[in-house]
Amino acid sequence: MTHIARAQSGSTVKFSKFQGLGNDFLLVDNRHQDQPVISADQAVQLCDRNFGVGGDGVIFALPARQDSEDYSMRIFNSDGSEPEMCGNGIRCLAKFVAEIDGNGPERHRVHTLAGLMQPSIQADGQVCVDMGPPTLNGPDVPTTLPTAQDGHVVAASLRVPEGSRGSDWTVTCVSMGNPHAVVYSCDGKDIQLDQLQLAQIGPLFEKHEVFPARINTEFVQVLNRGHVSMAVWERGAGRTLACGTGACALVVAGVLEGRIDRDCRVDLPGGPLQIEWREEDNHVYMTGPAEFVFSGTVHV
Amino acid sequence: MTHIARAQSGSTVKFSKFQGLGNDFLLVDNRHQDQPVISADQAVQLCDRNFGVGGDGVIFALPARQDSEDYSMRIFNSDGSEPEMCGNGIRCLAKFVAEIDGNGPERHRVHTLAGLMQPSIQADGQVCVDMGPPTLNGPDVPTTLPTAQDGHVVAASLRVPEGSRGSDWTVTCVSMGNPHAVVYSCDGKDIQLDQLQLAQIGPLFEKHEVFPARINTEFVQVLNRGHVSMAVWERGAGRTLACGTGACALVVAGVLEGRIDRDCRVDLPGGPLQIEWREEDNHVYMTGPAEFVFSGTVHV
Repeated sequence: MTHIARAQSGSTVKFSKFQGLGNDFLLVDNRHQDQPVISADQAVQLCDRNFGVGGDGVIFALPARQDSEDYSMRIFNSDGSEPEMCGNGIRCLAKFVAEIDGNGPERHRVHTLAGLMQPSIQADGQVCVDMGPPTLNGPDVPTTLPTAQDGHVVAASLRVPEGSRGSDWTVTCVSMGNPHAVVYSCDGKDIQLDQLQLAQIGPLFEKHEVFPARINTEFVQVLNRGHVSMAVWERGAGRTLACGTGACALVVAGVLEGRIDRDCRVDLPGGPLQIEWREEDNHVYMTGPAEFVFSGTVHV
Repeated sequence: MTHIARAQSGSTVKFSKFQGLGNDFLLVDNRHQDQPVISADQAVQLCDRNFGVGGDGVIFALPARQDSEDYSMRIFNSDGSEPEMCGNGIRCLAKFVAEIDGNGPERHRVHTLAGLMQPSIQADGQVCVDMGPPTLNGPDVPTTLPTAQDGHVVAASLRVPEGSRGSDWTVTCVSMGNPHAVVYSCDGKDIQLDQLQLAQIGPLFEKHEVFPARINTEFVQVLNRGHVSMAVWERGAGRTLACGTGACALVVAGVLEGRIDRDCRVDLPGGPLQIEWREEDNHVYMTGPAEFVFSGTVHV
């Protein structure tokens, strides 16, 4: 062993990187033990794109807790926080487990901190995830915007100060476990994404006083009733390539505003998702890609 | 093989990621054949941080061309361009070859597109690289700023328009194979990095008419004659964690302006480099870290 051999303390971790619409994760097969093999602090180091492997988060396939589950999921984000769930992440996890187990199309029963999720791998390799029902009650989103009699905030008027003048934005508020403000029009005109100043406008929504937990904001341009295009400003993350829950929220909002159909293609900056807000069960179903990128070994 | 098995065309490439001051590269042992095993286009895909492995470039250890060399180096940058050389990259390459060959401290004779480079791995694991002599002749840097009788541009005055007013910057121009403007003071005051508006000022230098090939600009705060701190705005890349040639250029400039000693520690945003502008041979020697991050396999 020479002086330049790397430190031999710690342990060696195998991982595979997957990405869904450019939202990328390091996947670890952790089904041999209950606790993640790396800590949240180590995940922060691994996710560093210059000094580490690079990723938006580390996702662990953990043992099932009971017979009605196939396995459990936990995520450490690149900032060390642990979200309840991640729409792009669970698609990647389903593909990862299917690949290492050598199985084909199937439904996975996955325990997450947000409850049981059931991603299904489809014949074309895309993954469909039941994202559950939306939360529409304004105070639960949460927002302090005035609600209609049913408690919903649909096509409400929101004035956002920009420079010397303000604009009057039309917003619908939806929670998919996290809060979303969805915007289809401004000053009475439909949103045109190529004219949107996202970096200027996004923070004004995120920090607006009517959103006490801050907010993710989706700006949506309707192409037709079954196809929209969106830009997103994520709470704490800014402009991102894809926000799965945001795509779900904007379809719910578009249906409530009467603009689009319940089954709609959503073009995100990172690629398309198919979103269905199903009438029978009130659940939102998200279908999209999850792709293997590479596998590696890292010493932590 | 199931429908979700990945495509089996193309080939599988093993790589190791190394980083020097956060400047990160995918290193490939390509010594079995003369041509890089992946193309520049494939390097662009691999370097994508969301959809690919992620890196600032791919570096190949290629066969030596003659007995006086140990191996050759080529780089594809993340944009597919091929630079002559890269100071942070050649440190990473030397460590990579030493690790896979299991050797200890040694001098490597590396053919690059900028000529023979001889990185040496030191007892502490840092790598020292002879970066050659600086070019000080103004038109060769290139800059159109007025030169002194010796042809150098040292502590010249440069007015840069900012909003309604301008500032008078003091610049020394140095080429280390690529052009640098080094700034130690503005309006007669020493640079204070915590008061520098790099994102506003950097582009005004980069595109200034006196730099016909555009310019990399280093802003330097002197801590003492043997220790400075810098921020850099790189031509075409903007704010970066580290610019090895920039660290070399600013030591040359600091010596010419009488501000620092010939052997000086330079703190870059990504970490420190030790730079010596040696009087005997007029060469600049750069010593700094290069660290293994992880190894992986990717299908291209």
